[in-house]
Amino acid sequence: MIDHLGIAVARLSDAIERWRPVAGDPEGPPEEVPTQRVRVAFFNVGGSHIELLEPTDPASAVARFLEQRGEGLHHVAFSVPNVTASLDAVVARGGRVVDRAGRPGARGRTVGFAHPSAFGGVLVEFVERP
Amino acid sequence: MIDHLGIAVARLSDAIERWRPVAGDPEGPPEEVPTQRVRVAFFNVGGSHIELLEPTDPASAVARFLEQRGEGLHHVAFSVPNVTASLDAVVARGGRVVDRAGRPGARGRTVGFAHPSAFGGVLVEFVERP
Repeated sequence: MIDHLGIAVARLSDAIERWRPVAGDPEGPPEEVPTQRVRVAFFNVGGSHIELLEPTDPASAVARFLEQRGEGLHHVAFSVPNVTASLDAVVARGGRVVDRAGRPGARGRTVGFAHPSAFGGVLVEFVERP
Repeated sequence: MIDHLGIAVARLSDAIERWRPVAGDPEGPPEEVPTQRVRVAFFNVGGSHIELLEPTDPASAVARFLEQRGEGLHHVAFSVPNVTASLDAVVARGGRVVDRAGRPGARGRTVGFAHPSAFGGVLVEFVERP
């Protein structure tokens, strides 16, 4: 299933107010994700989630995305039983990956990213619940 | 809830094969949506859907998106009880909309789009089930 949809934003506090009328209240206070150099907030929208991502480092991938394309849809994350197995499956069919194995992500989950070229320009994340 | 995630693609047949390992088989044969000048295919991914959109007209919004940004995440659609009411709510808080009222969309649904400026660069669609 779709675990969440990631949206790159310039200022988390502004973005939370913008999404509140559609997505309700965030699930909790913003969380810092050091491995991705972002601060994030999640909304639960009927079981799937919206993740707002604000960069904490101007050299991070999300900061570069904002510079090049501006705010907007950044990635889609699928819930999978095993992140490393899903990344291996992408590689096995000739796709590129950002991560070769699962690593710590937001909300205590193990995560891993394929490369956008593997899915026609879409950055795909795999998420494994603990 | 998130009804679907729209992804702009150059060739629907290629894109279906690219997404099959992650999203499974499409729900049915491709469908033409004349009001949006696209041909679409849907995958059911645990209740939410992935919609692949191929333009059928080089002057359509999706064709322009492909020219400007290439293939990738195009819009997010939320399931709502009443599309026109959701559009009205966006206008009421000062947001711009593409549609002022619901109109026929894919899969027999009534749909309506807000303007990307209303959601920080994200094109938001509202979808009402029949």
